Amino acid sequence: MGNNAHEKKIYLITGNPHKFEEINALFKNHFLNYKLELKNAHPIEIQADDLVEVALFKLNSIKDKINDSCFVEDAGFFIDHPLQGFPGVYSSHVFKKIGNQGILKLIDDPSRSRARFKAVIALYFKPHDKVYVFEGEVLGKVAAKIRGSQGFGYDPIFIPNAMPHKTFGELTKEEKNNLSHRAMAIKKLIDFLKKNP
Amino acid sequence: MGNNAHEKKIYLITGNPHKFEEINALFKNHFLNYKLELKNAHPIEIQADDLVEVALFKLNSIKDKINDSCFVEDAGFFIDHPLQGFPGVYSSHVFKKIGNQGILKLIDDPSRSRARFKAVIALYFKPHDKVYVFEGEVLGKVAAKIRGSQGFGYDPIFIPNAMPHKTFGELTKEEKNNLSHRAMAIKKLIDFLKKNP
Repeated sequence: MGNNAHEKKIYLITGNPHKFEEINALFKNHFLNYKLELKNAHPIEIQADDLVEVALFKLNSIKDKINDSCFVEDAGFFIDHPLQGFPGVYSSHVFKKIGNQGILKLIDDPSRSRARFKAVIALYFKPHDKVYVFEGEVLGKVAAKIRGSQGFGYDPIFIPNAMPHKTFGELTKEEKNNLSHRAMAIKKLIDFLKKNP
Repeated sequence: MGNNAHEKKIYLITGNPHKFEEINALFKNHFLNYKLELKNAHPIEIQADDLVEVALFKLNSIKDKINDSCFVEDAGFFIDHPLQGFPGVYSSHVFKKIGNQGILKLIDDPSRSRARFKAVIALYFKPHDKVYVFEGEVLGKVAAKIRGSQGFGYDPIFIPNAMPHKTFGELTKEEKNNLSHRAMAIKKLIDFLKKNP
């Protein structure tokens, strides 16, 4: 039946099935000793300026209820210049309200902008009874206009430095997995799990 | 010594001394049986779309530590048209990042905008061992440009319907106290305290 009797479970806490599918695909590529399971719980999301703080609070608000290895993943889009990091930890809320059109109105000279996508994973690892943090970040800038239909959220207005002629919205899934903030953080988590099978 | 031996204490939980002064001035006008005290605690501020939810969570995260009557006050600026309520519960964070200049860039036709200031007070009233909520709201629109130097935050870009030729930033303290969202919520709290001396 393909299942390893000694396979361990690890829970991804999210209400977003899309996120689960994306992370699960990466897990399956690596023949890990862990099986990813979706846990649709309701952790507490605080207002804070730092993504790590938000992720740790979220994890700590829920790990005792799960009582097994589990993690949360949080991502944000930070426009360091000229918006002092906005929308940052509030990325998803801001996107729902003003969208990419709104963001572009706030930037006078996109060619001089500095932006980054950041992902944070906070893991409670039961065998060590400890919490670990894994981060991934991609640097780039804001595009002059919306381009591309791949991905979601701010992808069509973000140009990564590593591929300076394309937005994230114009990359294939494979291209994006090679350089995305989320893939980077997940790879660090997978390396950790390989060392702790 | 002026102090009433039977005077009771009520705690305002805030890190903002300016907010304390403003509310204390209103309390002192009313010869209440309660003395307002500042409590600089650190309640938990959650990400939620609703101001009442944020205030209740904040109060509940801290009231057991205080173990006496106490309240929190939260306010937000909601641009219902054309920004679907943005910046709303994130008003203070958004203000720090993009300011009034940023907000004005997001609004193509301010004359057709609809905006409101809202304040919410969540009170834990020890004699009843119960939580009460008091709300105040002012309707208006967004100004075409920044006007006036009174008040703070979004005041210079908000025109209340009740005084359609002035922004909140152009009102005197007395004028603002007659119609502001915060004053309205505080008056409801004061009425409650008068009925429960």
